[in-house]
Amino acid sequence: MARRTRIRRDGGEGQGPDVASPHVERRLPYFDPLNEEGLARLEAQVDWIMQDVGLEFRDDPEALRLWKEAGAKVEGTRVRAPADWIRDLCLRAPREFTQRARNPARSVTIGGVNQVFAPIYGAPFVRDLAGGRRYGDMESFEKLVKLAWMHPNLHHTGLVICEPCDVPVSHRHLDMVYTHMRWSDKPHLGAITEQSRAQDSVDMAEILHGADVMNEHCVIMGNVNTNSPLLVDKVVTQAIQTYCGRGQGIVVVPFILSGAMGPVSTAASVCQAMAEAMMCCAYAQLVRPGAPFVLGNFLSSMSLKSGAPTFGMPEPVLSNYAIGQMARRVGLPLRCGGSLTASKLEDAQAAYESADSMHSTMLAGAHFVLHAAGWLEGGLCTGFEKLVMDADRLGSYQKVLGGLNVSDEALARDAYEEVKPGGHFLGCAHTMRNYQTAFYEPALSDSENVESWEEGGSLDMRARAYTRWTGMLARYEAPPIDADKDEELRDFIARRKSEIPEAWY
Amino acid sequence: MARRTRIRRDGGEGQGPDVASPHVERRLPYFDPLNEEGLARLEAQVDWIMQDVGLEFRDDPEALRLWKEAGAKVEGTRVRAPADWIRDLCLRAPREFTQRARNPARSVTIGGVNQVFAPIYGAPFVRDLAGGRRYGDMESFEKLVKLAWMHPNLHHTGLVICEPCDVPVSHRHLDMVYTHMRWSDKPHLGAITEQSRAQDSVDMAEILHGADVMNEHCVIMGNVNTNSPLLVDKVVTQAIQTYCGRGQGIVVVPFILSGAMGPVSTAASVCQAMAEAMMCCAYAQLVRPGAPFVLGNFLSSMSLKSGAPTFGMPEPVLSNYAIGQMARRVGLPLRCGGSLTASKLEDAQAAYESADSMHSTMLAGAHFVLHAAGWLEGGLCTGFEKLVMDADRLGSYQKVLGGLNVSDEALARDAYEEVKPGGHFLGCAHTMRNYQTAFYEPALSDSENVESWEEGGSLDMRARAYTRWTGMLARYEAPPIDADKDEELRDFIARRKSEIPEAWY
Repeated sequence: MARRTRIRRDGGEGQGPDVASPHVERRLPYFDPLNEEGLARLEAQVDWIMQDVGLEFRDDPEALRLWKEAGAKVEGTRVRAPADWIRDLCLRAPREFTQRARNPARSVTIGGVNQVFAPIYGAPFVRDLAGGRRYGDMESFEKLVKLAWMHPNLHHTGLVICEPCDVPVSHRHLDMVYTHMRWSDKPHLGAITEQSRAQDSVDMAEILHGADVMNEHCVIMGNVNTNSPLLVDKVVTQAIQTYCGRGQGIVVVPFILSGAMGPVSTAASVCQAMAEAMMCCAYAQLVRPGAPFVLGNFLSSMSLKSGAPTFGMPEPVLSNYAIGQMARRVGLPLRCGGSLTASKLEDAQAAYESADSMHSTMLAGAHFVLHAAGWLEGGLCTGFEKLVMDADRLGSYQKVLGGLNVSDEALARDAYEEVKPGGHFLGCAHTMRNYQTAFYEPALSDSENVESWEEGGSLDMRARAYTRWTGMLARYEAPPIDADKDEELRDFIARRKSEIPEAWY
Repeated sequence: MARRTRIRRDGGEGQGPDVASPHVERRLPYFDPLNEEGLARLEAQVDWIMQDVGLEFRDDPEALRLWKEAGAKVEGTRVRAPADWIRDLCLRAPREFTQRARNPARSVTIGGVNQVFAPIYGAPFVRDLAGGRRYGDMESFEKLVKLAWMHPNLHHTGLVICEPCDVPVSHRHLDMVYTHMRWSDKPHLGAITEQSRAQDSVDMAEILHGADVMNEHCVIMGNVNTNSPLLVDKVVTQAIQTYCGRGQGIVVVPFILSGAMGPVSTAASVCQAMAEAMMCCAYAQLVRPGAPFVLGNFLSSMSLKSGAPTFGMPEPVLSNYAIGQMARRVGLPLRCGGSLTASKLEDAQAAYESADSMHSTMLAGAHFVLHAAGWLEGGLCTGFEKLVMDADRLGSYQKVLGGLNVSDEALARDAYEEVKPGGHFLGCAHTMRNYQTAFYEPALSDSENVESWEEGGSLDMRARAYTRWTGMLARYEAPPIDADKDEELRDFIARRKSEIPEAWY
């Protein structure tokens, strides 16, 4: 039974990840929050933004040239275009595509019935129970990549799992990409912050995977934010040109806190996010028809008291659901949500907010979930304990996504022949046949009675998580890599580091 | 705007609860996990259990007589009946009904688009940050009832918010019911453990509300478990006779841990729960056609290692969704789910499990949610901090249930005239018109930056929750009560206590 191997206990018993868990195949329906009338109103708004309001494409004359040539209405840097045409361009992107990993068993399919979980991206700080809160560094970065690789419920290692702040900014992308390539064999992202860094990432992927494979397959992707509201700068257009130009994938993500980068309204912000991402998808299809594109969305609310961003609140829960429904109509793979929280530590607030955020992410049908594990402090801090705590819960979501088994065996009629009213099913034949695969067995939830729990030291989940991740790292053994390719990667990095002046900004 | 008053900040600023928040009106669709084929398979299984397997009705000859007289197939204590007939009987129960509170502003409607949240029921232990874990007593019971009354996100106070273990078991129901009647004016439940205690509860309700009101309205309900699998004892049938016989409501809840009281299969356990509850609903309609009935469901999984019950896991998440879809087809108000966890304290495990449990409870469309706040340790312990932490999150669910606002004002087109690409919406006219009601503002989530949080003492959510509930109790002022009725209630209790020998079991 395929599902039995896919939904494994939260692993890490061996030295590497669970080979059978490359991603999740969804059998559960989606949750659609909008009726036809509501959906039509929101789609009309998206069209209005694309046609009448338009987006600015700044600092990249090549982008404006391409838009003009294709027939868009370009005035200065403002680009407007007929909505039908943008929607047609979006249809050129694949509804699903595979990102090949260097270990084929870990390749992931993004789109369709598949959901791919990746860890937090972009935090300058890290935090763990022993070391407290501190700036991220290369040592933490490497440990976190290893943990993401080992954890069976993470299918993709992302890129900036924390900022390695002890490496010059101008060289950092080289060390980050190499760490993912060398100490993990799961798929990952490349850099986007400058075009040369995106190019270095793509060049390194070509070394690792070979030009032939890269010509035919997506082996690396970039993940880039628009400058909401309605502004696309050259970081975005050049990342699209670099990744999509080489036939690779791109995730474009409007980052909107409603009230700041979008109106103080969930519906309006969702429409703006759709319009921004769809225009970027259309642009990517002008650069290269058929380029893998993931429609991104990062939308949250803010505190009325302080203006600080808030996470796991009802407004982003609703926006996850709405964006899922709208993205399915456009036919694009979706990135949204994650295990998000504003909490500074791994307390109940962090878990309530992360769970509501992630539950909606799951039912909304997000195909690629960055920030699925490890996020703290509004994304400013990667938690070692939080990483394995969230990932433990991802196993539960995977099982939910598998849907309800309604087979004859699941209906268990023979059990009712054997067990009489008032009896119990503990030892009956049906139970003996099924109990081993019946329930998700989390690694970090304690279900013992209070006496046993006290005998074990009254540990809370955070303390158990510390034991878990340190134990995983102690068992880590690197996946094998072709020695020639490894040397070629190291040579490339050495050459590029000698060419690029060290810079810390 | 009705919603504006309904979705209030998490209150407790005044001495009493938020008058405008009696319950939640749902505008969000339901999440249906089953396709037509799956639903048909499960419904056929429910019918098979009712028709071919049957339920035992034990220790209550009156119940068997009633079934026989009505035309069911009764063999010994086994009752089987045509599924169509049971479904028809279920249709006699109202799809929604109002439980009147002694303060009419706090009456709740159960069923339809309404969702009513009530606290934990039945825990022998209590726990708080200052006092630790201990047996429940009357002092804790009274405090918890006051907190449930004050909290705007709880609409109903339930009954056994903890076991007051310092009161003799035989007298306990009298003190519990009186505490709810005197120190709260929200609706509550009555006792069910023995027919005389159910009768005392109904008699006290008659004193408080008056016979005339009680003849016309539901003012009290009982909540009772079947003895799963497939066994209904006299506690259930006599509770139905006592409550429904007097035109009052009853909640009947199969309590099933899959693998023990049901097969080790979520689908089979859901069907068994439906069959048990529907047979009890049919019985209630034989006792009194039109009696308010809530189809209950309490279904969870267990640890494969220890056999201990587990909560917030994928199997009960799926069962919440499935039972919601099936209950809507039968046309009965539903009780399921809650903020459930196996954790011993208010840590991240408690919050992850409670949130996944409650998120699914909400989307599944549960109308009456017992255990919506305060549950710890698999229901063995009521947490004072957990009560206000869960209740804070209930405010978020209330806002989600309100659905996505897609009005012209929500689409904010004027904001795009005012704010240019790359600008911000912080001070624009649309923001100024809407910011005060745009976002749910939780009382217990901290969204400050890490520096401000550290200056405030680096408090986790549990510590903030302690401050909150102690502060609420310090502000408590009892709701007014008619002095004659209060005296009559006290006289009734004194008389009954003199009649009933003290017993501690």
